[in-house]
Amino acid sequence: MTTTTRRLNLNVGINTTGYLGNAWPYRTGNRHDIADPAYYRRLTELAHKGVFDAVFFSDHPALMTDPNSRPFHTLDPLILCTALAAQVPDIGFVATVSSTYNSPYNLARRTQSLDVISGGRLIINIVSSFNPNVAANFGSDPLPPRKERYARASEFLDVAKELWASWDPAREGDVPEGRFWDASSAHAIDHEGDYFTIKGPLNVPRGPQGHPVIAQAGASEGGIDLAARHGEIIYCNILSRPAGQAFGKKVKDRAVSFGRDPSGIRIVPGLVPIVADTHEEALRKHELFSGAGSEDGLLKRFAKENGIDLADFDPDAVLDPAQFIPDPNRIQAVGMGLGLSELLTHESLTARQAVRRSEGHHRLVLGTPEQVADGLIDLWADGTVDGYTIQPPRAPDDIEDFVEKVVPILQDRGVYPRAYEQTTIRDRYGLPYPD
Amino acid sequence: MTTTTRRLNLNVGINTTGYLGNAWPYRTGNRHDIADPAYYRRLTELAHKGVFDAVFFSDHPALMTDPNSRPFHTLDPLILCTALAAQVPDIGFVATVSSTYNSPYNLARRTQSLDVISGGRLIINIVSSFNPNVAANFGSDPLPPRKERYARASEFLDVAKELWASWDPAREGDVPEGRFWDASSAHAIDHEGDYFTIKGPLNVPRGPQGHPVIAQAGASEGGIDLAARHGEIIYCNILSRPAGQAFGKKVKDRAVSFGRDPSGIRIVPGLVPIVADTHEEALRKHELFSGAGSEDGLLKRFAKENGIDLADFDPDAVLDPAQFIPDPNRIQAVGMGLGLSELLTHESLTARQAVRRSEGHHRLVLGTPEQVADGLIDLWADGTVDGYTIQPPRAPDDIEDFVEKVVPILQDRGVYPRAYEQTTIRDRYGLPYPD
Repeated sequence: MTTTTRRLNLNVGINTTGYLGNAWPYRTGNRHDIADPAYYRRLTELAHKGVFDAVFFSDHPALMTDPNSRPFHTLDPLILCTALAAQVPDIGFVATVSSTYNSPYNLARRTQSLDVISGGRLIINIVSSFNPNVAANFGSDPLPPRKERYARASEFLDVAKELWASWDPAREGDVPEGRFWDASSAHAIDHEGDYFTIKGPLNVPRGPQGHPVIAQAGASEGGIDLAARHGEIIYCNILSRPAGQAFGKKVKDRAVSFGRDPSGIRIVPGLVPIVADTHEEALRKHELFSGAGSEDGLLKRFAKENGIDLADFDPDAVLDPAQFIPDPNRIQAVGMGLGLSELLTHESLTARQAVRRSEGHHRLVLGTPEQVADGLIDLWADGTVDGYTIQPPRAPDDIEDFVEKVVPILQDRGVYPRAYEQTTIRDRYGLPYPD
Repeated sequence: MTTTTRRLNLNVGINTTGYLGNAWPYRTGNRHDIADPAYYRRLTELAHKGVFDAVFFSDHPALMTDPNSRPFHTLDPLILCTALAAQVPDIGFVATVSSTYNSPYNLARRTQSLDVISGGRLIINIVSSFNPNVAANFGSDPLPPRKERYARASEFLDVAKELWASWDPAREGDVPEGRFWDASSAHAIDHEGDYFTIKGPLNVPRGPQGHPVIAQAGASEGGIDLAARHGEIIYCNILSRPAGQAFGKKVKDRAVSFGRDPSGIRIVPGLVPIVADTHEEALRKHELFSGAGSEDGLLKRFAKENGIDLADFDPDAVLDPAQFIPDPNRIQAVGMGLGLSELLTHESLTARQAVRRSEGHHRLVLGTPEQVADGLIDLWADGTVDGYTIQPPRAPDDIEDFVEKVVPILQDRGVYPRAYEQTTIRDRYGLPYPD
């Protein structure tokens, strides 16, 4: 493949035991893996073998102590990604960071440091945090309202971009005899905004990507605005072609309305793959990994999650999308609830069909390796999406299956590289360099 | 050597081009080294060859844009230490972090993550920041007064210790069938203090050292209090035996007054070594690396820095210590100015003698490899100090000289190990583990 050929981009989530909270009893390994750096190194090397563009760490800075849970966000993503970048070549890193609970100078500095150290392999996934448990770790104030969090996130990224560009050795002229550097290559930014007053310059020079690639999730109106202003890789949940096309158009139209060229936006939704030798076996794996145990279990969970009385529940009746619109004022991330209502808006589905279309809020693609590869290529081929953030139910098992069985098919179909090309994540995603 | 023998502990500062701002024209390398991760890896491997306990990064989050300066604090210390810990075994890392411009939850999480990832090799050097240029990168408020910064630093470390201990897998009982973990191994801390309200628990499990080793500098009264309450490795400037003994006694007596066992405190001052084949050659190197150019230059600088009129200046007259007490209200770190006045209090020195006793505020030890080794062993042998933070004028050159010429003498004298013993920094410094 040449660099001008459109190609499928793939990231893979490698938090703790894998994406699905109930799949861990079926994984290889033990519970001490979750804080073992050697484990994450093995997962990253596995992802490197699969020529993934990046490993992805979701995050929130709090520990859930429900005895029935498992810790899902533990080692600090930027620290862990730094250790992994020092050990594994080529592959990129998506580190999730909060714009609500960090200061721009510190965060711009840490992320530019890692981007420099890794040779341009950092993607930061900016989240505004939505969890009161997080707020309680940062003071006595409650979580700011969503609108304020997104306004702060947008100014946070404005000022981070100013800081990332504030010291650029490429601006150095001739350095006079007896001087170490041309100090005019650095300048104060003197930012004064609604949320931040920051003098600058940043004390880390500009890195090989200009600045780290910015990923963004969030499907509320504020989230769409933020994606349209700043997002380069959009992490989202897209369960069907029409919903995906509508979402991509919405983000890109919004970008145009802000005067931004939408060609610098990549749609890279989450996707849960379940691979087996037969389709039937993949269905059984889904029932186990979801924790539902059986198709009946999946249907009961569906009814419960959506407030449907089991007495009135006909799993073979076509569902009414109007009943599945999430409350926009709920505390949880809005985006994670929109997928189902959008799916049902565009496709007539029964509950029995719908439960096989998503898992953990993301699109579920299950079946034989060929069926899974077909499912991936399907929405990519016509440009609905640019790639996927693969969320394996179990780590390492479902990453191994994907790398060994699905990746070779994608390579044989000519849509996915057989080895790493280019150096920076920006180049691998075909994203423009900042001015 | 066995683990019970007292041994010399050595750290080495590896910021950018070396410790002295005017020595860079005489170093090997170019100005792009300062943001090149491969350069820091080479320095760390060199320090590893010298069996140093740790490499040390001082820090402040701001860039000085004086054209005659050189950037001295650039890549984020925790990020850089993480990359180096992933590449170089055994050696420890001292990362300087600000308690004024970080939140305890984030910092406790990042540092515990690195301590886990490095297998117990992290020392954090807590500073309260004293520079208005730093304050300007974190909002429109001026730098808080020193007293408030130290009070915040002390509560910061109180709460960090609670967080570091809040999730300890060693507390896990039997994990019942069907559960991933014993969630009772984690507990909220519910801290409510003057500066911080934090619920916890931390979402990173306790590391192999209990918590990172805490280093602390600062010789003002607030700094001594903080060292006495929390410091395990005390970085300071000690120019003579009596001053060192007085300082160590002050910190340890203060610790006792706070009810702390002073046996967990190590005195590890900075020390600038200049090694040459002859003593005369070392004197010439000092004149060059200091930027003074000659002994006359050193004397002129001394007069200027201390406000002495050259017309009245007799470089061979004994100096009056009362004229060299620093203003306790000055903005700069108090500790860096105390050394000279304390030296003159305890020893009768002329300016010509005094200029050879310190450089960059730290004790200067210059001469042949034997003379430098003697100078190191001198204050260590009687327990005045426990070790040194070597501050090489030039990196890599003066680290190479020290490793190749001085370290073998220390090893032959039986005061310094020939290879790494123990795993954690706590064990190498003989420091107690937290409860």
